[in-house]
Amino acid sequence: MDATVKSLDQVLLQGLQEVLGLPDQQIALHEPEFTGNESALVQDCLDSTFVSSVGKYVDQFEGMLANYTGAKYAIAVVNGTAALHIALKLAGVQPQDEVLLPALSFVATANAAAHCDAVPHFVDSSLDTMGMDPIALSEYLGTIAELTSHGLRNRHTGRKIAAIVPMHTYGHPVDMAALMEVANLYKLAVVEDAAESLGSTYQGRHTGTFGKLGTLSFNGNKIITTGGGGAILTNDAELARHAKHLTTTAKRPHHWEFFHDEVAWNYRLPNLNAALGCAQMECLPDFLERKRELANRYQTAFSYLSGILFVAEPAQSHSNYWLNTVRLETPEMNIRDQILTAANAAGYQCRPTWTLLNKLPMFAACPRAPLPVAMQLEASLINLPSSAKLAYPPK
Amino acid sequence: MDATVKSLDQVLLQGLQEVLGLPDQQIALHEPEFTGNESALVQDCLDSTFVSSVGKYVDQFEGMLANYTGAKYAIAVVNGTAALHIALKLAGVQPQDEVLLPALSFVATANAAAHCDAVPHFVDSSLDTMGMDPIALSEYLGTIAELTSHGLRNRHTGRKIAAIVPMHTYGHPVDMAALMEVANLYKLAVVEDAAESLGSTYQGRHTGTFGKLGTLSFNGNKIITTGGGGAILTNDAELARHAKHLTTTAKRPHHWEFFHDEVAWNYRLPNLNAALGCAQMECLPDFLERKRELANRYQTAFSYLSGILFVAEPAQSHSNYWLNTVRLETPEMNIRDQILTAANAAGYQCRPTWTLLNKLPMFAACPRAPLPVAMQLEASLINLPSSAKLAYPPK
Repeated sequence: MDATVKSLDQVLLQGLQEVLGLPDQQIALHEPEFTGNESALVQDCLDSTFVSSVGKYVDQFEGMLANYTGAKYAIAVVNGTAALHIALKLAGVQPQDEVLLPALSFVATANAAAHCDAVPHFVDSSLDTMGMDPIALSEYLGTIAELTSHGLRNRHTGRKIAAIVPMHTYGHPVDMAALMEVANLYKLAVVEDAAESLGSTYQGRHTGTFGKLGTLSFNGNKIITTGGGGAILTNDAELARHAKHLTTTAKRPHHWEFFHDEVAWNYRLPNLNAALGCAQMECLPDFLERKRELANRYQTAFSYLSGILFVAEPAQSHSNYWLNTVRLETPEMNIRDQILTAANAAGYQCRPTWTLLNKLPMFAACPRAPLPVAMQLEASLINLPSSAKLAYPPK
Repeated sequence: MDATVKSLDQVLLQGLQEVLGLPDQQIALHEPEFTGNESALVQDCLDSTFVSSVGKYVDQFEGMLANYTGAKYAIAVVNGTAALHIALKLAGVQPQDEVLLPALSFVATANAAAHCDAVPHFVDSSLDTMGMDPIALSEYLGTIAELTSHGLRNRHTGRKIAAIVPMHTYGHPVDMAALMEVANLYKLAVVEDAAESLGSTYQGRHTGTFGKLGTLSFNGNKIITTGGGGAILTNDAELARHAKHLTTTAKRPHHWEFFHDEVAWNYRLPNLNAALGCAQMECLPDFLERKRELANRYQTAFSYLSGILFVAEPAQSHSNYWLNTVRLETPEMNIRDQILTAANAAGYQCRPTWTLLNKLPMFAACPRAPLPVAMQLEASLINLPSSAKLAYPPK
């Protein structure tokens, strides 16, 4: 075969090999790393016997998250889905309201809306950020929605559109300045799904701190992990108080009385998991440095190859490069799958992006905008091995 | 003061002192104990890097729970509330259905019904088990409900009564033989809330295995803890499969595709917490032995005292004695609170039972049976320090 007209699977393999070498065993998509104080803090937590719903590590972890992101308040919870569920409730989402979400997202974004008995309403992404496209959104809302004294109303369904959930795809920030303009114009509460973007900033400000509330995830595949965990971010003292109350069974403080004043959840992060989170937060700057180095290497490697583009951080943004992503110049599902098969067979764990949420059976009847870019992204994105250690070992 | 007419707070203090001695520091109501393989297994889990949604400890913990309880299947989840939420859904509870619950229970029992958009319907307890009274229940249903081709209908509200949730209070089993008869007669799905009764059996069979589904909790205050955690028990293969599916985002198995086929939850127990659970399960027989010894000591001490009765395991039952409980012969809220004040001031952490669920603002409008015994229990139960180590140290 002529070396100048390589098939795309060969192109991807060449890029992977240049950056990662030849695998002697499967190179994972993303692995956590516990080379800091993880064992020490977890053992200290066991020694204290406070492994559960109260303990110093929950407070400490919340403090570290607030301090790092610049949010006034961080409330640690059991996972990112729980964080988003409660954040949407606190943003005022009522049963039967619609919530604007990217069609291109992990299923949790839509599940959290469904857990509020609300209706996901899918919108399109932009090619550069892979997140919500503020221009397409603004045009779309202009055609289907009207502002009333009760907020934004979907003229087709008659339902209120209560909130909008920008999600920072694979760690790359949405164009938040433009998005906040649209949200303000249409009086939409903004809840940022920053599950993937701890460490990512837009115009110097941390993702998850632009909206009324933001949410983080510390699942095992994220940039830091607590086993399972998440957090709610907000600058509003009353929302923070209420978030803590709703996620801890709404128990009124009392020496011994069991008095709970609203329907609530057991969404606490156990102290054991928070101890792990504290140690991981100490490692975050090092993780970010090494992930950026890995991203630079991928970017360089793919800059010399044709047909496959590396997805670099968007304008005005500093990405955490949680998952490194390439995009096929010509979107085509069969070719994408063929490339994935070849890469995985060669020992590089590569993954496609998510099936668009509007294609899942439980959300198929939900309202949606035209989704040309999301469809293009679905057929063209491939995630590459992205563990920090693939750049170089921890210091 | 004449020693023969001691005030009740002195009676309680005398009993506590005989069993526990004079405290040199506050004696906790219930403390976990990590003197087995907890550190080793948790460290092994960190070393494996599989701390999150998959890993050998989740499988192992589920196997240990199934083996111990005799349930065919155990599905580990993030906590007891989550377990009950999904168990109720799987039992067929639909929005607006009513669910029969004890008014005397922790708020999670009613919250889980509310999370299904169902309506809690409170029923009375029996004095001996502190759990649902099958005779009172049967009489009550005879007056308010009618069997139709669609199941049991509440004639007053017009709603379907879909399920019944016996809860084994402080580890003492409900009279399940009689309760199952009532449930079968009225075609009610039984979901057992066995959050407090791991290790308790009725007629030799483990609590949580009588109904269609049962649930456990491993919160920090329970007989074993995973930090936060719970499990769903069932003998039905299809319910078990569905429970696992609904608690793990309903993702269809595939090499790389993200395809989810129903609205679902992120209710997984992280592998880190399961590792702790495996070590705790190894200790369970020892915990049970020492807790029974402590209960025997309390029982003996209070058998010589008047006005305060020790709550012993009910007939046909073997209790885990999770929380030791005494009952005032004369129920009176003010006296109860006076006794609690004295006991806590003396260094013994004692607690009342829960505020009856029908008194909480969010459930005040829910239907309820006459609750004479629950009201009596609310004004007369006091929980005593119950950690296993209060009997003797671990072997």
